[in-house]
Amino acid sequence: MSKIIIIGGVAAGMSAAAKARRINPNSNIIVYSNETYISYAGCGLPYFIGNNVRQIDHLLARTVEQFFAQNILVKKACQVLKIEPDQNKVLIKDLQTQQKFYDHYDKLIIATGARPLIPELPGVNLPGIFVLRNITDSLAIKAYLEKQKPAHLVIVGAGYIGLEMVENLLDYPGKITLLEKSSHIIPNMDNNMAAILSNYIAKQGVEVKTDINIIAFQGQDRVEQVITNEGVVDADFVLLSTGVVPNSELALSAGIELGIRNAIRVNEKMETNLKNIYAAGDCCTVKHLVTQQEAYIPLGTTANKQGKVAGENAAGGNSTFKGVIGTGISRILAMEIARTGLTEKECQTADIDYIVSDIKSKTKAGYLPHANDIYVRIVAEKKHHYILGGQIIGYPGAGKRIDVLAAAITLHATIEQLIDMDLAYAPPFSPVWDPILIALNNF
Amino acid sequence: MSKIIIIGGVAAGMSAAAKARRINPNSNIIVYSNETYISYAGCGLPYFIGNNVRQIDHLLARTVEQFFAQNILVKKACQVLKIEPDQNKVLIKDLQTQQKFYDHYDKLIIATGARPLIPELPGVNLPGIFVLRNITDSLAIKAYLEKQKPAHLVIVGAGYIGLEMVENLLDYPGKITLLEKSSHIIPNMDNNMAAILSNYIAKQGVEVKTDINIIAFQGQDRVEQVITNEGVVDADFVLLSTGVVPNSELALSAGIELGIRNAIRVNEKMETNLKNIYAAGDCCTVKHLVTQQEAYIPLGTTANKQGKVAGENAAGGNSTFKGVIGTGISRILAMEIARTGLTEKECQTADIDYIVSDIKSKTKAGYLPHANDIYVRIVAEKKHHYILGGQIIGYPGAGKRIDVLAAAITLHATIEQLIDMDLAYAPPFSPVWDPILIALNNF
Repeated sequence: MSKIIIIGGVAAGMSAAAKARRINPNSNIIVYSNETYISYAGCGLPYFIGNNVRQIDHLLARTVEQFFAQNILVKKACQVLKIEPDQNKVLIKDLQTQQKFYDHYDKLIIATGARPLIPELPGVNLPGIFVLRNITDSLAIKAYLEKQKPAHLVIVGAGYIGLEMVENLLDYPGKITLLEKSSHIIPNMDNNMAAILSNYIAKQGVEVKTDINIIAFQGQDRVEQVITNEGVVDADFVLLSTGVVPNSELALSAGIELGIRNAIRVNEKMETNLKNIYAAGDCCTVKHLVTQQEAYIPLGTTANKQGKVAGENAAGGNSTFKGVIGTGISRILAMEIARTGLTEKECQTADIDYIVSDIKSKTKAGYLPHANDIYVRIVAEKKHHYILGGQIIGYPGAGKRIDVLAAAITLHATIEQLIDMDLAYAPPFSPVWDPILIALNNF
Repeated sequence: MSKIIIIGGVAAGMSAAAKARRINPNSNIIVYSNETYISYAGCGLPYFIGNNVRQIDHLLARTVEQFFAQNILVKKACQVLKIEPDQNKVLIKDLQTQQKFYDHYDKLIIATGARPLIPELPGVNLPGIFVLRNITDSLAIKAYLEKQKPAHLVIVGAGYIGLEMVENLLDYPGKITLLEKSSHIIPNMDNNMAAILSNYIAKQGVEVKTDINIIAFQGQDRVEQVITNEGVVDADFVLLSTGVVPNSELALSAGIELGIRNAIRVNEKMETNLKNIYAAGDCCTVKHLVTQQEAYIPLGTTANKQGKVAGENAAGGNSTFKGVIGTGISRILAMEIARTGLTEKECQTADIDYIVSDIKSKTKAGYLPHANDIYVRIVAEKKHHYILGGQIIGYPGAGKRIDVLAAAITLHATIEQLIDMDLAYAPPFSPVWDPILIALNNF
């Protein structure tokens, strides 16, 4: 009977465990998690803070008991201190009893995730400054907001988490300021698309400041001000959402090869360079299928897919995860933003000759109520017209249209193959020419 | 200076005119329409009846004056009686003055559309029995509903128009009965999917009856009863929505070849068998790209695409319209239905070996408010796993996901190529595994 040890009990780890069990009913599966909560929906945390999810329990997909019923043993609050690949064993510390012990594996899956990037700045440890990564963080933030009723809420970093937190903080009293170090918000989209969202957010009463470098945080008992290159911003609540770094130190010290951004390097089978050791989720690299380069794009949906493949292979199966194309989506109230593939900026960085199409259309037939604006940008390779990327910003119904372009990129389609595509049309869903088709015809 | 005559002033005709003008600024373009309204959004008519579109004017895309400003001459209420292809001329009757006259063309585009199929049944001409095809129809229906306040509204035919009319009649007083001759509603979807919609419609208080053959309509001054094989249904309003037939008689009498269902046969360039004569829109055939067979699937979005290609080619360009894959979408209140490619039933008819995947999921992350049911069915070719078709039924956000499968079918994708596709995920848009991916993984 083979034994699979999984380090990490959230998206990738628990997907791996569940899949391994389905593949091999007889394998011995143990999950070690250094957290007290397992199998939770990390992506739902902003919505818990915003009271869209009423109870934290609703974010818990499955309990230790439910996994146990599947013959998956989950050990919470157990930190893996060391991997000894030569002897196929890991050294574990029980964080409650402080006891250390070894456990042996036949296959090991590292799903240690990532942690927020915390800038090394004066005052960064002041009370009132938070990151949002796990349930403990979200409980702390919510308790703080409810108790302190901050008048000045500052979000540092305007990526997906920062934007989702804008939406979820809007129902709290207090003025919101969004600070971004790049020249525009959502830095992984092009400037013209980001500008539309920026205007929308500003209309909600949020102050948006770009090109901001933070110099320090100041305050007596808790944070009171953010000192920036553009002046002082009042702040009695700060959320740092400036990205994450992979938890790869444990792997590195075991001799496992790291890749870009110090993430654990994996192949299509989610194998590391060491025999019998897999990695999955936010701790590891992923192949970008457009650039064909190694990338670090930690996202929940990718973590689940990688975990499933790692679990299947560790249990004796033969599965692959080909990679990602950088698809992402977010919503701030009624405004949806989405992207896939490469942006214009990314094409320039990768020195790819490209052409670009920008259009504005409506989410529905223009004569219907709630027919609102949608902006579509498509980037294609100049010579052969392969679709390289897409970006969408618009009102409800806009965002998920990005999936058509994600499919097109996955299948290496050209503009010409798609230009008269039979997309679904009825007045409540689209103008008679779908916005994606308008953008394709606009090249 | 070449002269283009277009017969028909709605979707295909006016798309052709507009495109021809863009391609060739010098050509002489004349549109003859036998209607008094031109360039209207026929698909919006149910929503006008349902008061979702307040004024009929809102359905008029462009006026005669606006076309004139583009140097496109539109002659309303002018019926083309005859095409004389040997002499490149058409005989026209001005319906207001009753005058007849000839006009000469270099290129002719036939965009005569379709008309509702009216079953030859006793009493079918009784007042209170309507079809819905054009603005005149919609004004008559609305006036009747407002004046007569019918207590028993019967819709005959549960295709797209019938279903859209269910939604738009629900705000009127009176009980709605939906009669369908097939064994289930939306006959172009599979039974298990249709059943979900059927239950939903029934919950709105609509009586749904299938396997119904209508024998006669009865009444004194106006319709009072529908006599069926399953008994008598009270009815003081009847909408016949049992499909359309192409207006192809004019073409046939000129020696133009007809194809399936008596629609005008066209090739990829929208050429008929006669030199210099094109056809586009609901009067003509279309190639089904999955079966590779000629089909008759009249839809507004196809009409626009065909019209654009006919206009471009008539004006000296070189454009093609490859065909359709039978994509369609509709909504009844909060329930969205969509289909593309082939259904299971259609695979059986075409004698194709297939496999099928049925799943139920949620439109959003399950912990968010308004995370509601979505059902996805995918049909794939058994041997090589090519995606052949998809069907979706579900709550808001469900329907347009069909476009991912439309793109996949267009690009001849297999299950394996799509199974780990990077579709957009964030909690307000999808579970962490997109329902389409769940369905693909379920084969």
